Amino acid sequence: MDKLRILLTNDDGIHANGLYCLYNELKKDYEVRIVAPYSEMSAVGHAITLHSPLRVQEIYRDGSFYGYAITGTPADCVKIAVQELLKDDPPDIVLSGINLGSNVGIDVLYSGTVSAATEGAYLGIKSAALSLATRKDPDFSFASRFSRQVIKFLLNNHLERGVALNVNIPAVPEEMIKGVVFTRQAITRYREYFEKRTDPRGNVYYWLAGEIIIDENGRADTDIAALQNNMITITPISCDMTSNRELERLKKAQPFQWKL
Amino acid sequence: MDKLRILLTNDDGIHANGLYCLYNELKKDYEVRIVAPYSEMSAVGHAITLHSPLRVQEIYRDGSFYGYAITGTPADCVKIAVQELLKDDPPDIVLSGINLGSNVGIDVLYSGTVSAATEGAYLGIKSAALSLATRKDPDFSFASRFSRQVIKFLLNNHLERGVALNVNIPAVPEEMIKGVVFTRQAITRYREYFEKRTDPRGNVYYWLAGEIIIDENGRADTDIAALQNNMITITPISCDMTSNRELERLKKAQPFQWKL
Repeated sequence: MDKLRILLTNDDGIHANGLYCLYNELKKDYEVRIVAPYSEMSAVGHAITLHSPLRVQEIYRDGSFYGYAITGTPADCVKIAVQELLKDDPPDIVLSGINLGSNVGIDVLYSGTVSAATEGAYLGIKSAALSLATRKDPDFSFASRFSRQVIKFLLNNHLERGVALNVNIPAVPEEMIKGVVFTRQAITRYREYFEKRTDPRGNVYYWLAGEIIIDENGRADTDIAALQNNMITITPISCDMTSNRELERLKKAQPFQWKL
Repeated sequence: MDKLRILLTNDDGIHANGLYCLYNELKKDYEVRIVAPYSEMSAVGHAITLHSPLRVQEIYRDGSFYGYAITGTPADCVKIAVQELLKDDPPDIVLSGINLGSNVGIDVLYSGTVSAATEGAYLGIKSAALSLATRKDPDFSFASRFSRQVIKFLLNNHLERGVALNVNIPAVPEEMIKGVVFTRQAITRYREYFEKRTDPRGNVYYWLAGEIIIDENGRADTDIAALQNNMITITPISCDMTSNRELERLKKAQPFQWKL
C-alpha cells in the first residue's frame, strides 16, 4: 500500500525549526512533502498573491532535497502545492506548523498558520494547523509526536467541507499536559496601542503593541482558557465566516428598507 | 447634536474612485474621516502588520485635507484609526469600500475590504463592507447612495460583537435591482490553476489564474446566487471562525486519543 502523503507548510518560513522537527518525526512513516514560504509570513491572515508572480526554489538540507520555498503566503503555498507542484500526487493531509507561538482567540483571523489549514480544507483535503504556545526556548519534540494523533484523528473522522482543525499545544513538560479538549475560538479583546516613534531621519512611524485581556471569564470552552489550563486545544475552524445566529435573526427581522 | 462620525477605508487604496464617491456622498451629512492604504491591498486577507513600522501620510484632494494614507493593510488602517489617529474622537461607524469587484463566496476570506469591516466589529464599532460587482466601467453612484441605508440599518439594529455586514451590490441599472436579501457566504469551489511562465532572464514564475464554478446549485440563500439574481446581498460575517456545528459534533464523539 502506498504511504500516506502529507504536505507540510507553515508561516515561519521553510527554514524554521518547528517545521524541521515535524518533518523529521513524520518522514519515518509517511511520504512527506514541504512547500513553505521563503521568509517569515506571520500575521499575514488568509492572504493570497494575485498581483505578483510566485517564485519557487528547491531547498536542500542535511544533504538532500528538503522542499520547495515559495515567495508567497502560507495559503499560496497550499494552493500551488495542490494545484501545480504536487498535482500528480496530491497530498492526503495538510499540516501547517509547528508554529512558534499559539494561534488562539482573535489571532486565528490574523494567522498565516491557520490560513494554510483553512485553504487545505477548502481544497477538500483533511487539514490541521499546529502551534506550540511559546515564543522562546521552544521544544517541539512532544508537539511533533502529537501530530501523529492529529493525523489519526483526521483519517478516522469526517469533517464538513471547508473545516480544518486548529490545534494548540501548551509549552509545558508532557506530564503537565492535562488532556485534549475541543474548544471554540475566543473573541477576547486585546488592549492594544500604537507606539509612536521617530526614525533616524526625523520621520514619525508607528508600531503596533498590545497586551491581552481575558474578558471571557468563566467560559472554559474557549481555546484561550483551555490552553492556559494546560490542555491541548482543538478548534474546528471554518472558511465559511457567516454568523448563522445573526443570519437567522436578520432573516426574521423586518425587511430591509432600500428604496432610496 | 454632534454629527455621526464615519470612518471610511478600503483595500483599493486611498486614491481609488469607489472611496472618493462614497466620501462625496456621505460628507453631505456626516463627519467623514478617511484612513486607507497607501497602495492597493487586494486579496490581503485579514493581515496585520507586526514586523514593520507603519507610516502615515496626510493626503490632500480637491484643495483640502482628504485623509490619512497608511503603509499597511485595511485592518491596519482600522486599528490605527481607532486606537491612535482618531482616538480622541472615535468613529461611530466603519465603512469599507466601495470595492471594485464583488466580495462573495470564498473571496470573503481573502478580502481586505471585508477584513476592515471585521476588524471594526471586533473593536466594537458597527461596521460594513461595501462592494460593487464589476471590475470595469464602475458607476458608484447608486452604491454610494445605498450606503445611507446601510448606515441607518447599522444604527437601528444591534449585531453581536465581532459581527460585521458584508454588502454586495449588483452592477446593473438601479431599476433592475430586485431587492435586498440577507444571505450566507457560499463556499463555492473555483477551478483554479497556475500559469507557468518564463521571465525575460529565463527564470520560471507562476501566476494564479482561476475560473469560478457554481457548485451550490439550488441554494438560493448564498451571496453568490442572490447577487447573480440582481439582489443586493447582506451577509453577517463573524470574526469567530469556529464551526459551531462541527464543534458540537466533535464534543459528542469519543474522547480524543492522545497518550503517545
